[in-house]
Amino acid sequence: MKLYEALAWEIEDLVARQALRPGDRLPSVRQQQARRGVSPATVFQAYYLLEARGVIESRPRSGYYVTRRRLPDGEPPEPQASRPPVEAAMVDVSALVFEVLESARNRSVVPFGSAFPSPLLFPLARLARETASAMRRLDPWSTVADLAPGNDALRRQIALRYQLDGAPVSPDDIVITNGAMEALNLCLQAVTRPGDTVLVESPAFYAALQALERLGLHAVEVATDPREGMDLEALAAALERHQPAACWLMTSFQNPLGSLMAPEKKQELVALLGRHGVPLIEDDVYGELYFGARRPTLAKRYDQQGLVMHCGSFSKCLAPGFRIGWAAPGRHARAVERLKLSTSLACAMPSQLALAGYLAQGGYDRHLRQLRTALEAQRDAMLMAVARHFPAGTRATRPEGGYFLWAELPAGADTLALRRAALEQGIGIAPGPMFSARREYGNCLRLNYGHPWNTEQEEAMATLGKLAARNP
Amino acid sequence: MKLYEALAWEIEDLVARQALRPGDRLPSVRQQQARRGVSPATVFQAYYLLEARGVIESRPRSGYYVTRRRLPDGEPPEPQASRPPVEAAMVDVSALVFEVLESARNRSVVPFGSAFPSPLLFPLARLARETASAMRRLDPWSTVADLAPGNDALRRQIALRYQLDGAPVSPDDIVITNGAMEALNLCLQAVTRPGDTVLVESPAFYAALQALERLGLHAVEVATDPREGMDLEALAAALERHQPAACWLMTSFQNPLGSLMAPEKKQELVALLGRHGVPLIEDDVYGELYFGARRPTLAKRYDQQGLVMHCGSFSKCLAPGFRIGWAAPGRHARAVERLKLSTSLACAMPSQLALAGYLAQGGYDRHLRQLRTALEAQRDAMLMAVARHFPAGTRATRPEGGYFLWAELPAGADTLALRRAALEQGIGIAPGPMFSARREYGNCLRLNYGHPWNTEQEEAMATLGKLAARNP
Repeated sequence: MKLYEALAWEIEDLVARQALRPGDRLPSVRQQQARRGVSPATVFQAYYLLEARGVIESRPRSGYYVTRRRLPDGEPPEPQASRPPVEAAMVDVSALVFEVLESARNRSVVPFGSAFPSPLLFPLARLARETASAMRRLDPWSTVADLAPGNDALRRQIALRYQLDGAPVSPDDIVITNGAMEALNLCLQAVTRPGDTVLVESPAFYAALQALERLGLHAVEVATDPREGMDLEALAAALERHQPAACWLMTSFQNPLGSLMAPEKKQELVALLGRHGVPLIEDDVYGELYFGARRPTLAKRYDQQGLVMHCGSFSKCLAPGFRIGWAAPGRHARAVERLKLSTSLACAMPSQLALAGYLAQGGYDRHLRQLRTALEAQRDAMLMAVARHFPAGTRATRPEGGYFLWAELPAGADTLALRRAALEQGIGIAPGPMFSARREYGNCLRLNYGHPWNTEQEEAMATLGKLAARNP
Repeated sequence: MKLYEALAWEIEDLVARQALRPGDRLPSVRQQQARRGVSPATVFQAYYLLEARGVIESRPRSGYYVTRRRLPDGEPPEPQASRPPVEAAMVDVSALVFEVLESARNRSVVPFGSAFPSPLLFPLARLARETASAMRRLDPWSTVADLAPGNDALRRQIALRYQLDGAPVSPDDIVITNGAMEALNLCLQAVTRPGDTVLVESPAFYAALQALERLGLHAVEVATDPREGMDLEALAAALERHQPAACWLMTSFQNPLGSLMAPEKKQELVALLGRHGVPLIEDDVYGELYFGARRPTLAKRYDQQGLVMHCGSFSKCLAPGFRIGWAAPGRHARAVERLKLSTSLACAMPSQLALAGYLAQGGYDRHLRQLRTALEAQRDAMLMAVARHFPAGTRATRPEGGYFLWAELPAGADTLALRRAALEQGIGIAPGPMFSARREYGNCLRLNYGHPWNTEQEEAMATLGKLAARNP
């Protein structure tokens, strides 16, 4: 590491630990020069780097400051924590989910209900070149060698990122899967039997609910704060009451809330589940899409017992459509590998080789920075639009990453009816009941801000707001 | 169709119906000219075409003859039909299967135990070019549009082949999957609940047994003839006795036997299952690898009720490692599509687009002809080697397609022990007990002849034969 990089890293670390907070002024170049004995050029280089990364900003004739969270004025208030019933429930949500997914495929529909960000945000041309180049260099025998757990070079690249995230995982304990969806499903299958109970957030990602439904598992929804994630007291109570077989959480930028668990809370979560011997399926597909100074910690980082089954993916942050995800299932790695072998054998070789090549070439972090900057601006635009157009009393979450926010309309609103009315106007939304085993959250909706903001979207938000106001 | 093509087609049809049999002499060019009123050039063109297709052969100064099955003299006798117990069994075969699969990945091991043919037999360079070209032309929005049921152009290409095979299927009723393995698993899930009974062949493909094991299903193995496939009388009795939820068969070139059901038998099978309302999961991944004059009929062709769930794949015959298979699940198409959506969402886009491009360009059938010619020669070489090197009393099947044969050593042989001894010599085999819910067939083994024959293979067969003779 060069001197200026080391200096930048130090400052970034202070910001991450909140020793320096948004709006704080940084030491001047002269101060750094005097106290640290480094040249002005080094300090400038470090500050330019931090500015490029969005960590600090310069104010003319004033100096450098830690970047303020750029949330708009007049933003809507945040929703309260959920209070789901404590009983287990069989899940019955699939039909609704398929209806919503189907309408999200129609490109003429404004994609607020979509599960995906805009494909235009991804380096598809570069990926096309990597794919072509990987296929030219292909060793024919890799078609046999790259069976589960998957391509060796790709697993090493993923292991490298785990190391950088402070949660070292051996490449041998990584299983490449057909997107995170398959990873999560295999992890769930590896640790449950039909009739078991699984703890999930409330509201929860619908695919988790569908997986429980399909495998004949009972869901217990646990109270979840829209900003800080699952309530650990409620979790402790549910662990005592239900003896669950597993807990399935999105610890960073939860879908649909956008909530983010603090590092200490993740640590406490892992310790609590560890005391009960309950595996944690950590769905972390949005973790790279943070707007803060640094990638959120992985719960996996605090795993001493091999009970955290961490699942990731390139679908949301690099290569949608390549269908490459992975699981790092800790002590259950072999079980997951065998399930992969006997359900779908292996992952597509062109996709695996292309991503391994891309990651080895570098440029992933640069792409991620651009993507995060775009998503953060789009979040702000959508929050502004909620404030401007939605009925008084509407609440909305303020996600610090990802591309979903959760809006709570005034009591009595019916987002299933709103969805039908909006679709007639060519606007998609994801209604709240998709995210609950009992179809609760009837006055809530998930909004996707993963698409570059434009007047069409602004107008669609105005139309949605009008429809919502008319809604009984 | 040109005149000479029509003439060739007529003759090929006579051969397929066995009106002309192997060794029969064809009418001379003069006869054709006189009786059909076609020019000598047309007849020559037709005969050259048939010769190129391997349907007929010319003998110097004698004329044209229907190609004789080129099986070697002194080939080993064929095994008898199986007689499995009629009771249902819970399956417990996975651990053994994983052990064998693992050792098959080691490239220094002679691949008689492998599940795959040699990757060198596939047009990988051409596929690499198609992949590169498809990725260059990529519409970014296809990453959303190509969710389950899969890429539209690819589904249309597959539908076209169903039409040519006389079993028309709408592209809308085809679900692209992560290899046939996923297709079969999804079809099985769509029509069963834990505790149900499923009928399979005996011996059966181990992945079918593993799927039953994983889903908590009971297996009933039904008597199967090594040449003609499942015994329909035994099937009728099992249907009465067990009220199964489904029947999972490989109707053409069954793995491990290589058996092939005649068209009338397939028709009878579909009618019999139809009378009981039992879905047929038709695993047809080897159907294109026929050595006869024409692709074997699909049981799907006789399906009136939408009960046949036909599963195919490009992994065995075109593009190993691309992980593209499909299901044509009849009346259960929507259920399978939804299972695909909620377990792995979609298939890799680079693989789908590359294969759609390849199929549209043409050349698939030419590749298949080359592949079939290679496999047939390798089958002959392996049968000769069995006859030469294996203990007296060894029986072996004579598959008319695919790349597996099934050898039955004299009673008392133990192929699990043989497998361990052979592995020490660097030779892999697939022992019989892998293919049975109760680990029967202890004196049998499956041999893979999917790799170009060479002296190393010949010597490995000699070593295997010696080990087998020493075996108690």
